[in-house]
Amino acid sequence: MNIRVHVSLKPGVLDPQGRAVHHALEGLGFAGVDEVRVGRLIELDVADDTDDTALTEMCEKLLANTVIENYRIEKVG
Amino acid sequence: MNIRVHVSLKPGVLDPQGRAVHHALEGLGFAGVDEVRVGRLIELDVADDTDDTALTEMCEKLLANTVIENYRIEKVG
Repeated sequence: MNIRVHVSLKPGVLDPQGRAVHHALEGLGFAGVDEVRVGRLIELDVADDTDDTALTEMCEKLLANTVIENYRIEKVG
Repeated sequence: MNIRVHVSLKPGVLDPQGRAVHHALEGLGFAGVDEVRVGRLIELDVADDTDDTALTEMCEKLLANTVIENYRIEKVG
């Protein structure tokens, strides 16, 4: 089973990497970019009998820092 | 307009970060994890009149390293 975990910084948390990308885009001449936030995309190939509880636990314990990050679990198939 | 750019390593490209996460998951007792790949998720807030060409160019020039990475542009709304 293929799982995608989308991890992004919570709103309000400072994102220096996003700022750097934003600044670089402006430097390259791309106008009209308002905000950039950089997160992680973790693709896991897990056994088909892995349940949602285990997936949530993986996110809470390791994949995301829930103090400053949100995560979303997506089952790809 | 909100845009999400999903950047992931091409198949076959070594992913040490993914390996480390895989190893850590096993260490935490999660069985049945086969493979882990770590990519980036870049969220952009761009002007509504930004066209697809500009978005593709942003990816090719800055957001993704197309030698080793694939990218996918998703319009969120």
